[in-house]
Amino acid sequence: MRLDFDGTVTSPQGFQVGTATCGIKTSGNSDLMLLHSTHNCNTAGMFTTNQVVGAPVTLDRETLEVNSTTIRAIVANSGIANACTGKQGLKNAIAMQNLASKSLYCDPKQVLVLSTGVIGVQLPMEKIDKGISTAASNLNLEGGYAGAEAIMTTDTNPKLFAVEIKLPTGTVTIGGIAKGAGMVHPNMATMLACITTDAEVPVSILRKSLRTAVNKSFNRISIDGDTSTSDSVLIMANSASGISCAQGESRKAFTTALTCLATNLAKQIVKDGEGVNKFVTVHVSGAASIKAAHVVANSIATSPLVKTAFAGSDPNWGRILAAAGKSGIHFDLSETQLWIGSRIEDELQLVKKATSCDYDEDIAQQIFSQPEFYVHLDLGNGTSEISVWTGDLTEEYVRINSDYRT
Amino acid sequence: MRLDFDGTVTSPQGFQVGTATCGIKTSGNSDLMLLHSTHNCNTAGMFTTNQVVGAPVTLDRETLEVNSTTIRAIVANSGIANACTGKQGLKNAIAMQNLASKSLYCDPKQVLVLSTGVIGVQLPMEKIDKGISTAASNLNLEGGYAGAEAIMTTDTNPKLFAVEIKLPTGTVTIGGIAKGAGMVHPNMATMLACITTDAEVPVSILRKSLRTAVNKSFNRISIDGDTSTSDSVLIMANSASGISCAQGESRKAFTTALTCLATNLAKQIVKDGEGVNKFVTVHVSGAASIKAAHVVANSIATSPLVKTAFAGSDPNWGRILAAAGKSGIHFDLSETQLWIGSRIEDELQLVKKATSCDYDEDIAQQIFSQPEFYVHLDLGNGTSEISVWTGDLTEEYVRINSDYRT
Repeated sequence: MRLDFDGTVTSPQGFQVGTATCGIKTSGNSDLMLLHSTHNCNTAGMFTTNQVVGAPVTLDRETLEVNSTTIRAIVANSGIANACTGKQGLKNAIAMQNLASKSLYCDPKQVLVLSTGVIGVQLPMEKIDKGISTAASNLNLEGGYAGAEAIMTTDTNPKLFAVEIKLPTGTVTIGGIAKGAGMVHPNMATMLACITTDAEVPVSILRKSLRTAVNKSFNRISIDGDTSTSDSVLIMANSASGISCAQGESRKAFTTALTCLATNLAKQIVKDGEGVNKFVTVHVSGAASIKAAHVVANSIATSPLVKTAFAGSDPNWGRILAAAGKSGIHFDLSETQLWIGSRIEDELQLVKKATSCDYDEDIAQQIFSQPEFYVHLDLGNGTSEISVWTGDLTEEYVRINSDYRT
Repeated sequence: MRLDFDGTVTSPQGFQVGTATCGIKTSGNSDLMLLHSTHNCNTAGMFTTNQVVGAPVTLDRETLEVNSTTIRAIVANSGIANACTGKQGLKNAIAMQNLASKSLYCDPKQVLVLSTGVIGVQLPMEKIDKGISTAASNLNLEGGYAGAEAIMTTDTNPKLFAVEIKLPTGTVTIGGIAKGAGMVHPNMATMLACITTDAEVPVSILRKSLRTAVNKSFNRISIDGDTSTSDSVLIMANSASGISCAQGESRKAFTTALTCLATNLAKQIVKDGEGVNKFVTVHVSGAASIKAAHVVANSIATSPLVKTAFAGSDPNWGRILAAAGKSGIHFDLSETQLWIGSRIEDELQLVKKATSCDYDEDIAQQIFSQPEFYVHLDLGNGTSEISVWTGDLTEEYVRINSDYRT
């Protein structure tokens, strides 16, 4: 497996991207992307668990229900999320689908739609119309980076990654772009990821691989605990390499590589989170089940008191234990242990059997001052463990999110 | 029912309070309170649901299990929470109980203990010892206000209230003091309330009344969603008035008055929350059950995106709907309606059937600029409704909580 940090959705064979500046974003940056495959694609998608969803989520779910084997394109806009927009919003999403399919000479049901940005505002359809034509006219095999830029909202940099898998039968590539849960502009709260591959993967296996990968990546990050109305992850497999990842070792390798790609994109999202200065891995071990470990880790990773302590470089372990304690997962407090570290060599134990170790407070504070560090809580209650990734909660986050929208 | 905004735990007959400055708080403010009843008290308590609990919570639960009918005193210190302090912590809590019982010439099992402050630090028992002697020596019938001050940690003002109930048989009084969930000093996270009454109330009824009152008051407030290791509410009924509230109308009146008192104290806590500039009532109606309404209201009241919008006077209703949507409670988005207002006369509808009303953005912003306002979400899914109280999430909250402990 070869990691390509400059790779993107156009790294796999047969995918091209075009972009346009419609003028939805007041910044004047590009805000529309068309991702197109020269072959029909097996396609799978995972969407937000929030029951308040944007029109594109509703539409894509419907589209994938009737067609998951001949998808050709994704049309995405940034600046407006097309969420909480009622019947007109759904009409506009369908119009985007129709406009893209006309530009690409395919059926509307071969096109998926993504929108990210402000909630509660209707899309300017004339601008979108022109933008889709422009994007279709500049489709190209090197367009992935521009595509990653066009879907940015409050992100400070584009998020992209690719992985090559060497199989006995040849090489297949998976590429991806994402935009973050950064919410600088107060209504934006969306995580989007588009993933492409030239491997041949049946839809049923694509779905399972995607679920595995998302559960170990995008579902393990947290900026502020809020769930967007539009979170979407789509994967298109166009078989252009002619190499199958349908079973056996090649299937395993595909899932592993997809998980690696998704994890990398997910970590990029946390690092670029709003007001985030520190990237923190919260590792929980000794749990009765993976699910229990995940609930405890999330409770720590979303606690405002823990996250402000991260911001203040304050190794305030009482808050970490208290956050674990309120998670609802049962464990025996007297068996808990806690370590922190920025790398294995400087690991420091703070808590043993629920009471403070005799550690050097200066060293603990030094670890929490690093741009990346981990906290590791062992519950002493089983053998399951998990890592989740989060950031600190800074004054900048509040400043960004309390700025008035206009 | 007469409300007494200057009333406190010494308003009911037969209760006295003494205080002391032990030197636990570096500020030099008073940090120890002894609340004493001249008669034996029926007593009930409710404690944090966090499974990581301070030693006093463990001890009080044990004490109330063996004795809930002859309680005479509460000894409370502020500055150190005696939580995450292991076996030594429990020994120290028992020592506090013993010291107080000696000073008051009663049995240790007649004394309850409260501690609030930094987690993970042992109590300075010599200082506590002296403090208890001092407090016992200045017990007096006017000591309630000083008691409310002595249990403050990061609170900016003492919290107190009393209610008089006129019954056909005479007058009974309920008084209370509380300290807040303000967490200026990074390890403090505790809500404490001591309530006294001179009514005659059997323990079984006292427990039920307290549960009703707490569910409608302290369980409906949220500063930051974090649950303390030491949250405790205690009520002592000493029968000094000779008037029974054991059944019928007098029992109902007692529960109503207790709920009123607890609600008032709970609101005082929110208003004095860390970094809180605005007091917001989140009202959810049209829910399938009270529980469903509560879950949705809490999801809104604890959402960082909603709370930063409150701070920024941004009537960003998309965030409110999104927070309701992620709550896990099922409702039909297309039936939702949302109003905001600072008083009934200026109520403004923002959302009807999930889409934006044609409202004046300036007026909406003006309402969100008030020091107190409400948001009212109707789910269109039933007849149950509830109010919870919360504050805005400001940069000041983050600044306070990311300051290093020392």
